Parts: sequence; C-alpha cells; structure tokens
Amino acid sequence: MQAVLKARPAAGFDLGDVAQPRPGAGEVLLRVAAASVCGTDVHLYDWNPWAQLRVHPPRVVGHEMCGEVVAWGDGVRSPAVGTRVAVESHIVCGHCEECRRGDYHVCENTRILGVDVDGAFASHVALPAANVWPVGGNVSPQVAAAMEPFGNAVHACSYGDLAGRRVVVFGCGPIGCAAIAVARVQGASRVIAVDRNDYRLHLAERMGAHSVVRASETPVDDDVRRAAGGDIDCALEMSGSSVAVASATRLVRPGGWISLLGIGDGPDVIDLSNDVVMKGLALYGVVGRKLPSTWERTTAYVRDGVIDVAALITHSFPMSDVDSAIALIKSGQCGKVTLTPPD
Amino acid sequence: MQAVLKARPAAGFDLGDVAQPRPGAGEVLLRVAAASVCGTDVHLYDWNPWAQLRVHPPRVVGHEMCGEVVAWGDGVRSPAVGTRVAVESHIVCGHCEECRRGDYHVCENTRILGVDVDGAFASHVALPAANVWPVGGNVSPQVAAAMEPFGNAVHACSYGDLAGRRVVVFGCGPIGCAAIAVARVQGASRVIAVDRNDYRLHLAERMGAHSVVRASETPVDDDVRRAAGGDIDCALEMSGSSVAVASATRLVRPGGWISLLGIGDGPDVIDLSNDVVMKGLALYGVVGRKLPSTWERTTAYVRDGVIDVAALITHSFPMSDVDSAIALIKSGQCGKVTLTPPD
Amino acid sequence: MQAVLKARPAAGFDLGDVAQPRPGAGEVLLRVAAASVCGTDVHLYDWNPWAQLRVHPPRVVGHEMCGEVVAWGDGVRSPAVGTRVAVESHIVCGHCEECRRGDYHVCENTRILGVDVDGAFASHVALPAANVWPVGGNVSPQVAAAMEPFGNAVHACSYGDLAGRRVVVFGCGPIGCAAIAVARVQGASRVIAVDRNDYRLHLAERMGAHSVVRASETPVDDDVRRAAGGDIDCALEMSGSSVAVASATRLVRPGGWISLLGIGDGPDVIDLSNDVVMKGLALYGVVGRKLPSTWERTTAYVRDGVIDVAALITHSFPMSDVDSAIALIKSGQCGKVTLTPPD
Amino acid sequence: MQAVLKARPAAGFDLGDVAQPRPGAGEVLLRVAAASVCGTDVHLYDWNPWAQLRVHPPRVVGHEMCGEVVAWGDGVRSPAVGTRVAVESHIVCGHCEECRRGDYHVCENTRILGVDVDGAFASHVALPAANVWPVGGNVSPQVAAAMEPFGNAVHACSYGDLAGRRVVVFGCGPIGCAAIAVARVQGASRVIAVDRNDYRLHLAERMGAHSVVRASETPVDDDVRRAAGGDIDCALEMSGSSVAVASATRLVRPGGWISLLGIGDGPDVIDLSNDVVMKGLALYGVVGRKLPSTWERTTAYVRDGVIDVAALITHSFPMSDVDSAIALIKSGQCGKVTLTPPD
Repeated sequence: MQAVLKARPAAGFDLGDVAQPRPGAGEVLLRVAAASVCGTDVHLYDWNPWAQLRVHPPRVVGHEMCGEVVAWGDGVRSPAVGTRVAVESHIVCGHCEECRRGDYHVCENTRILGVDVDGAFASHVALPAANVWPVGGNVSPQVAAAMEPFGNAVHACSYGDLAGRRVVVFGCGPIGCAAIAVARVQGASRVIAVDRNDYRLHLAERMGAHSVVRASETPVDDDVRRAAGGDIDCALEMSGSSVAVASATRLVRPGGWISLLGIGDGPDVIDLSNDVVMKGLALYGVVGRKLPSTWERTTAYVRDGVIDVAALITHSFPMSDVDSAIALIKSGQCGKVTLTPPD
Repeated sequence: MQAVLKARPAAGFDLGDVAQPRPGAGEVLLRVAAASVCGTDVHLYDWNPWAQLRVHPPRVVGHEMCGEVVAWGDGVRSPAVGTRVAVESHIVCGHCEECRRGDYHVCENTRILGVDVDGAFASHVALPAANVWPVGGNVSPQVAAAMEPFGNAVHACSYGDLAGRRVVVFGCGPIGCAAIAVARVQGASRVIAVDRNDYRLHLAERMGAHSVVRASETPVDDDVRRAAGGDIDCALEMSGSSVAVASATRLVRPGGWISLLGIGDGPDVIDLSNDVVMKGLALYGVVGRKLPSTWERTTAYVRDGVIDVAALITHSFPMSDVDSAIALIKSGQCGKVTLTPPD
Repeated sequence: MQAVLKARPAAGFDLGDVAQPRPGAGEVLLRVAAASVCGTDVHLYDWNPWAQLRVHPPRVVGHEMCGEVVAWGDGVRSPAVGTRVAVESHIVCGHCEECRRGDYHVCENTRILGVDVDGAFASHVALPAANVWPVGGNVSPQVAAAMEPFGNAVHACSYGDLAGRRVVVFGCGPIGCAAIAVARVQGASRVIAVDRNDYRLHLAERMGAHSVVRASETPVDDDVRRAAGGDIDCALEMSGSSVAVASATRLVRPGGWISLLGIGDGPDVIDLSNDVVMKGLALYGVVGRKLPSTWERTTAYVRDGVIDVAALITHSFPMSDVDSAIALIKSGQCGKVTLTPPD
Repeated sequence: MQAVLKARPAAGFDLGDVAQPRPGAGEVLLRVAAASVCGTDVHLYDWNPWAQLRVHPPRVVGHEMCGEVVAWGDGVRSPAVGTRVAVESHIVCGHCEECRRGDYHVCENTRILGVDVDGAFASHVALPAANVWPVGGNVSPQVAAAMEPFGNAVHACSYGDLAGRRVVVFGCGPIGCAAIAVARVQGASRVIAVDRNDYRLHLAERMGAHSVVRASETPVDDDVRRAAGGDIDCALEMSGSSVAVASATRLVRPGGWISLLGIGDGPDVIDLSNDVVMKGLALYGVVGRKLPSTWERTTAYVRDGVIDVAALITHSFPMSDVDSAIALIKSGQCGKVTLTPPD
C-alpha cells in the first residue's frame, strides 16, 4: 500500500510502498478514511532533536485519523466490520503501575502511532481494538480524525467546573481553539483568547471566544483583565511559552486553576510562594487524553452536535501532497489541516 | 490586662499592660487558656522586612490559641459562656469576590490575629464569633491552641486521597510533623519524612513516619525512593526550599500530586514541561485552612482522639517568658511550643 | 408599612399595615424592589396542614425577593447602601453541627423568610447581611427575585457533570424549567421535559428543552427513551410524583444519577435492589441552595447573561393583588409570577 | 482436571473431571492456588430461582480465587509466568455504552466467572489477562483470593471521605466485616456494627468495630445513636434488609451519605421526601468493583499490610469438601471460608 514515510534519518517525508499490515491478536485493521496533521508531525518532518532520539526509520508517520473497520485480529469481537471509528493514538501497555491505577494517559510504556509504530498516513493501519471509538455514520471522516487533538482540549477543560467562569486561553493553535469551543459548551461566561497570530485569533473568535488579545513584547495582563471584565477563574495554557505561564499565575484569581498543556523549550521561572502558594492556586499538567473518560466526553460532544468541530478544520490536501500541508502549518495561516488517503 | 506586645518598630517583644478588649457586634470575648508560637511570631520578633511592611505597633501579638467564652457582643447567641474554643486566626470579610465563592481562605481582606489586629498573647482577646470552634471539655487547652497549625496540615492533606498511598513530607517543623500524623490516619501506607534536623526527624518518627531521610548537600531522591519501596504518589512540601520543590516534582510518579505549603525566599526554577506537563502532575498551593471544612475535619480528629495532637507539643513556657520560647524555636530543638497566659 | 399578611389561622391572605422593621446587629434593612411567588406561598394561602403546624400568625409572608440596601445594623459594613441585592430565604444559625461542617443548606435551626420570620411581601424587610447577594445594576429586580428558586435548579444540576449528557426533567414548574436552562448552559446534549400541563411544556421548550413528553395515565418511559435517542444519563425529579421517581430509576442508565427535589405526599415504593444497587445509580436529595456555592454560580449565570432568567417570568401583579397571582398559579397557566411592592 | 461442578439443574455440587481449559487470545491460564466461597455460590448450590434462570449446567463454579500464571494466550505479554495474581470475577465486554464511559462495573454484557463461564473451583482456569492483578509473593493465596469480596467493601467505602466520620455498618458478613476494616484505615473515628448474629458481631469487633449492636425485632436506631456518641455521617448497608435501609435513612445526619450494597427480596418502602430530599442525603448503589480503581486501592492495602485481610478468613476446606464449606456458611458461624484446590 502507499504510505507517507520517514524513510531516512533526515528532514522531510517520502511517499513509498509498504506491505499492508495484518491485525494481530486483539487488533483491528482499519482502512484510513481521513487523517489530520499535528505539530508532532512537523517535528518528525523537520527531524528535530526529539525526533532523532525517538524515531527509528523507516516509519509510516501520522497519528490523527478516522478509519473504517476492515478486519478483526484474533480475540476481537467488536466493533463490527464497516464501523467508522476515531482513533486514540497512544497505545498503552495495560500492566505498568500507571495503567494499573487507571492513569493510562501516563502509561510508562506508551507507544505512539506514527512515532513508535507504523501510523496513519497510509491506506490501512492495524492497531489495538481498545484504541478505536465508533462515531456513528453522520460524523464526517475529517471531524472524526480531529477528535484526537480535540480530546486534548476536552481533557484540559476537565480539571475544574467552567460553568459561569471567566477563562483565558493562551495559544490559539488547533488545541487552543478547540478548548475555546469546549469551554463555551461547558458554560464559561467569558472566554478570552491570546495569541500573536491574527489568523489564529480570527479562528478563536469563530470557535466562540468573546474577546481576543494580540500578544506582543509587553505582557498582556492588563488587556486580558479588561477583556474579562472581572476576575479570571481559569487559564488554559496551550502555548508552552514561559511568558504565558507566568502571566497565567498572575492573572488567575486566588483559589482558581490553570491547565498546563503547552510544551516549552526549557525550565520555567515561577514565583511559587507568591503566585501559587499564597493564592491557593491549582496547576494541572495535562498530557494526552484520559482513557476512556475523555473519549467518552468527546464522542458525546460530536455525536449530538453540541460542538461544531468542522469549524476547526480549515484546509485539506491529498495525502500525497503532505509537503504542502506541512508548509501551510508552518506558515501559521490555518487551523486543523486534514489529509485524504489514497484510494 | 497583661499582654505580649510588639511595642516599637524594632526587634523583640515587650510585656505591657493594655486595656482589656470589649466584644463588638458579632464578636465574643475570650479568656485565653493557652497559646502557641508560630514561625510568623518569630518573624514579628525579629522585625524582618515582611513584618516591617505589615505590622503597625503597638500590637498585641500571637494567633494560635485556645480560649473560654466570657461574653457575647451584640447579635451573638452562641457558643455559650464558659465554652472552650479553638480559634481560627484569619478574620475574613465575607463580602469580597473570594468570600462570595466560598474561598474564605484566600479572602482579599483577611486580617490576621496578632498581626493586623490585637492577638492572643494576652489574658483576653475579642474576635468574631464565626472564628471560634467549640472543642469539648476533654480537649486540653494546649491541644486546642495547636489546632490552628494542625489545620494547615489537614488542609494540605485534603487535595487527594491518601489511603494506600506512599507519601513524602519535606520539612518536619510542627506543620510537617502534623501532616505525617494526618496522612497516617487517612490511610497512607508509607510516609517518608525529610529534614536536615535530627530533632525534627525524631519527632517525625514519633508522629508516625515509617522512615526518615536526612537532607544534606546532595539531592535526597534516591534515599526517598529506597525508603518508599515503590512509587511516590504524593509529596507534601512544607519547607519552602526550592531544592525540595524540584525534588518533589521529580519524585512523584506520573499522575500524582503535590501540596505546596512552604514559603520560600524567591522565584523557583521548575521544569514544567518535563516534570509537570508530561507527567500529568497536579500542584496545589495551600494557604490557611478551608472554612469551615478544614476545621470540621480537624475537630473530628481531635474530638474522637484519632490523632494524638499532644505528641506534637514538646515544650511550654509562661507567656511572660516568651523570649525563651522564641529562642528555643530558633534553635530547632523543639516541636510545637505553647505559652501559658497570666492568671 | 403595607404588607401581605397571614393575619389569622385560616385560608387567604390579608393586606395590612405593620411597623417597618429595624435592622438588628448583623442585619441589613432592604427596600423591596420586586418579589415573586412560590408554591410554598400557595400552601400558606390555603392554610394546609403543614402551614398550620409551622406558621404562627400574624406573619408577613413571601420569601423570593430583590431589594435595595437602605440601612445597616450594628457590625455590618457591606454591601453599600443603595446596592441591589437578591436574597437567600433560609436564615441559618451558623453554629449547629450541620453549619459547622459547611452543610448550611440543612441547618437544624433554619428559619425561613415569610414562614418563620416576617417576609418579603412588604415595602421593607430586615434580614442578616449574610443572606443578601449583590447582583449589579443591570439585573432587573424581577430577575433578581427569581434567583432564589433559580438557585434550587442550579443546586439540583450540581451533583454531576452534565456536559454531553442526556437529561430528563420531571415536572416543568418554575424550578423544573429553570433546571432545563441550567442543564443547557452546562452542556447537556439532550434535555427531555415531562409534565402533564401543556402551558408548562411550552415554557419548557422556551427554556431550552430539545423535546417534551406529555405525561398521562401510562408510564412515559418509552416516550422519553425515544425522545432522547439513546441512554438517559441523568434525571432531575422536580415533581414529587412517586410515579416519576420510579420512572427515573428505570430510565437512567447504569452508573447514572438522579437529583430528587420534588416533595411528595407520602412514602415511595422503590425497587432499590434492582433499580439502584444493581445499576450502580446515585440518588441525591436536594434541598435549598448550597451556601455560598449555589449563589455564586447563580450570580455568575445572571451577571454575564449566560442564562435568560427573564424568560421564566411570565406574569406580574401589584403586591396588593396577590390573590390574583395565587389564583393564576393554581390554574397552572403561568411560569414564575412576580409582585410589585407598594411605593 | 478435577473441578467442582453444577453438573445438573438441581441442588448440590458434584466433583467431576473436566478438560483443562486453554487460554484464548488475550487470556491467561492460571493454576488455582486458593479459592474462597461467596454467598452466590450458596445460591448456586441451592439452585434458587435466580440460579435456575441464569446458569446453564454443566458449569465449573467458583469466582473468588488466587492463581499463578501458567501460560499466555495469543497477544498476551504480561504478567510473567509464575506471577501470583488475584482475580476480578466480572469479565466485561469493553465495548458497550457503559464500558465506553468507564463504568465497567455495570457492563451490560458482564459474564461472571463460575456463573456464566467456567470458574475457579478447579485446578486451572483460563480468563482474560485484564482480569488478573499481580499481588506479590508475600501475600498468601488465601488473602489474595479474598481480595475480590474485600474489593466490594473498598468500593462501598469510596463514595465519601470517611476520615473523622462516624459510620454504621448494617450486616456483618464477610463484606460488612471487610468494610469495617476499610473504614478504620480510612480514618473513621467511630464504626458501629449491626447484625443479628453473635459470631459475626465478634468478627466485626476483631476487624475494628468500636461498638456492636445486636439487631432484634425492634429498630436499632437508639442503640446505634448511643454507641456513636454523636451524629452518624455515613451508613454502609450490606444486609439487603428493608428494615436496615429505612433505619439508615433515619439515622444518617442531614448532608450525610449511604452506600447500598446488600440485595433484598423485593421493593422497599422509603420516605424519600422526609428522609432523603429534606435531609439532603446521598444514596449510592454499589455493585462489583470499579475497574481498575477499586483493585488498585485494594492491592495497595494488601501490599503494604495496612489492612489485615487474613483476620477475615476463619476456616479452610479442601476443595473436594465444598459441601462442608457450604454447610458451615449456612450456619452463620464463620467469616470468609477458603478452599484448597486439588494438587
């Protein structure tokens, strides 16, 4: 079958022909219906230091996807062949200490689709039956593919009750924009979006932000306070910027909370005594999606149409033109970008 | 009446005669039955920069105390005259945004007994009826006085379920030692105590620590792991040391949590991306006591004797000899030190 | 001042002249800006057995109200004179076991405005400063008066996360209709309303119900399931009907939850083993409003306009025409009915 | 291999020879190290109406067990051969609505070991690898076998915080007695045990009950209140008796909670309005064990020895003498009874 490959330890992707996978025990074989591109894929493309350490070419890349069940491996009895499914990209071991306590999202032995095992930018993929989520036929393949990053936003919004709360979102990439929509549907009364990029701020507004604040050289604290019209209850940090983290700890009112999802470049300097301890703040590290609760919630949002995930998807390319998709993402002039697999 | 005063803007305390307070509307007048000394009192004594900014002499100092209700101000109908009560030292306004949402422990207008208003190192004190907690006659005045700092420990232990969990406590002053006892009664399966001070480590053992680790120049991570015999689920940071905070974020297993109660000297450097976000940790700033839940819990522990608070109290002085109490606390060779008021 | 009175131990209300109250210690005096009528007021009017046991005439009736602060009693420093406030009708003692643990909503010594003490259907009322909630000048007096029953709905919706959930509401009186709006703003994906009364079902739709089901002689289970299009996660029981309670335990899916707020006429027959234990259901008794959390939440909803409380208010009468208001409520052809106080 | 069978649709068990099972995909083969007997096994033995509807002979019975991993089915990589494991007896489907939302304990397609599939009273058993929990070599097989019913108690105690709380346990069979020990380790300040049977009340004391109350014809309310010395915060209903349920709703203080685990014979009559709604009680139906959280907690308790599970085990028989074990259980003169498998 045709696939997008990290074929060699160097920058760029290659299109190549690889053997179609077969589902092992406990696995299903999926025909890929749509995929979407994540920032991690850009790191793989650029062959950054993290990628050089982690990935062993040749590897079929890609981990955000929707598929249709084509075949069952041994021991599998569900979902039925033909079912349209979204895919959890983290394959967990089920037997480490973290899995045993139900913290699957921090499994010590996590293997990531398209990073540690062959992935989604191909016509077919095999993965554990436990990693697929039936979505119903009226959910488009593109929306189903985007449920994985959307789930990051659902997870980030799950650490406190947002109903009637004033929320600031730092970083309006696809996950930040998804978080805006999630915060709105969970009843947030004011959502303020912060980014440096006008395209993304426009997308933030389309996803439901009440106000947007353009980040610049100077701190945005005063602008955010003004836009909120009152105390900020919660910050969702999706940028990985140390400046944003510090701003978040200053802005959130005593007794409030912060979800930290963005990954930065190095250690942060933070005044824990004054900005966290004395204010009684809670800080939550957010990684992946809680299993199964985040998926169950995300599926409910999509199933009954309470969130318009399609608004997040701004562009689509044939999978064979993945280079253009990567270039567009680097330009910052897009939301979520999807790929159409080869027939 | 006789009282311990910060009489002048300089180091030291003075004994002096001041007018006995009268209870205003909503207040009760208490006869002090016992008081105890907090690290904050040492800061006041030393007239450190924080004290210089915050305190306006002359001021009756002291905020940890047990009293007996002597008289009611206007509008008060409870507790009955003669009732023995413990005292919450933070007087909250009840109408700021934080109070309105029930986050009384971070009230914007908090006035602290013995800091912002006249305090407990005296024969009598007047304060809001809402700040007193009946404790029953079989609780000694010394134990009742120590319920306020004990409550800090109860609060710090309330952010996650400790039953069956492995816990490390950094800093074995009175609050750290109290936290050890609280963690034990809440079912922690292993409690590891860390401090530089042998006296305190012995006290930690008496309060229920399964193992103690002596902090030194090199990080204690390996010693703590060995003592725990498995993953650390939770860290209670009571020292304010940046080194301890960093150690806590490294030691706690993915999906675990940290209570931050210690106050340090300046900004901390912390690798949020690797040690918090990617590990899915939760960090909680802990200040004061939740009202009324922490007091209700603390009272239940004391009332039914499930925790031996008396073991925390190692020394007692007449209130007139407060200088000796302060000197002993500075030596580090003590647990909680109590004061006996003048007759 | 003029007031609506239960003047004699008999059916009906009287208009009368009574002395204007003075605020005691800890109290504020309010000028009534608007009031609204509750089912409890109808019981008082009808002088039903409960009322005969509880109420000692003469009594100024009414407990749902908005007022403007006119004067402070001793010891009060907030809110400022002139502030528009909503009113919590339950006056709690602050010192019983329930209050001490923060369960103010079940205070053993609760006194209810207009039942146990003189109430709101008058030009002025005096009550504890702790019972008033500033609402801001852009909230109308009628909406502020309705925040008290609205708070019952907010409380009922607080026992589980409604985002993405399918919810059935039994009983579409004002509280049931308010619960529909609250469930919607908290992200419920399907809200099904059940009542016998067409007027109320229309109001339910206006408040956001996705579907309505007309209750009749036969159980509504199948109709509700069909309208939900899937499993019911949560039932909000606002009718007090034994038939509805039984239907709720059958309808809610295993692992789901039920809020019980309606008060019925006698014991219920319920198959706990099959319909609660084996299904792992949670049942929550809901009384009053949690203090202060329900009010904080309700205020946030009203303040930022995330819920249109005004839509719940269908009729208004001069306070002197309270008889017409009572008659209209008995007809069932209304939502919340408000009263305008005498000048 | 030799096994205890429900061989025919009639009362009694038979010893028989059956083929040793082979592990399918995703399954492990266990050599049984110890088993224990549950009330459900007595129902199977007696061939009661429930058993007649549910069980299709011939069936190897038994579901409480400890085993040693002997072989892996296809797709299994853990736990290592030779590992000692406890066993979750409910085999869940993983794909129904309940499983998809993480409510595995109420899976619609649950198959129970020894009821719906061949079980544990044999030398070997094959079951899903997801159903086994490594316990470490220093946990005896008997204790490991009893972790399954012990887990019911852990589950029942997980619906509220028991630290400093006063708890009444109705029904002192093995699960009730286990709940007493769990409540104690989680910090309950008073545990009152209620049963009709003196043997069980003695066992309740050995497991940590502060007081025991002998149930008789008249309600025990006053005796329980006296023994508690104050308000009851929580009731754990393990008896299935309607009388106990009604007593629990009367005894628990406003704002408290009740876990309902006992299964009764028919509908209950309960005054929801007065005893649940007006008191703001929470009632939780408790079935099975939450997966994986209950097992993780139970394993932590056993691993670090914070609870003495062995004290619950009073008798042991060779598996071939299962008739004597059943007879002893019917006599009520025992705690948990274990069986030793054939070599």
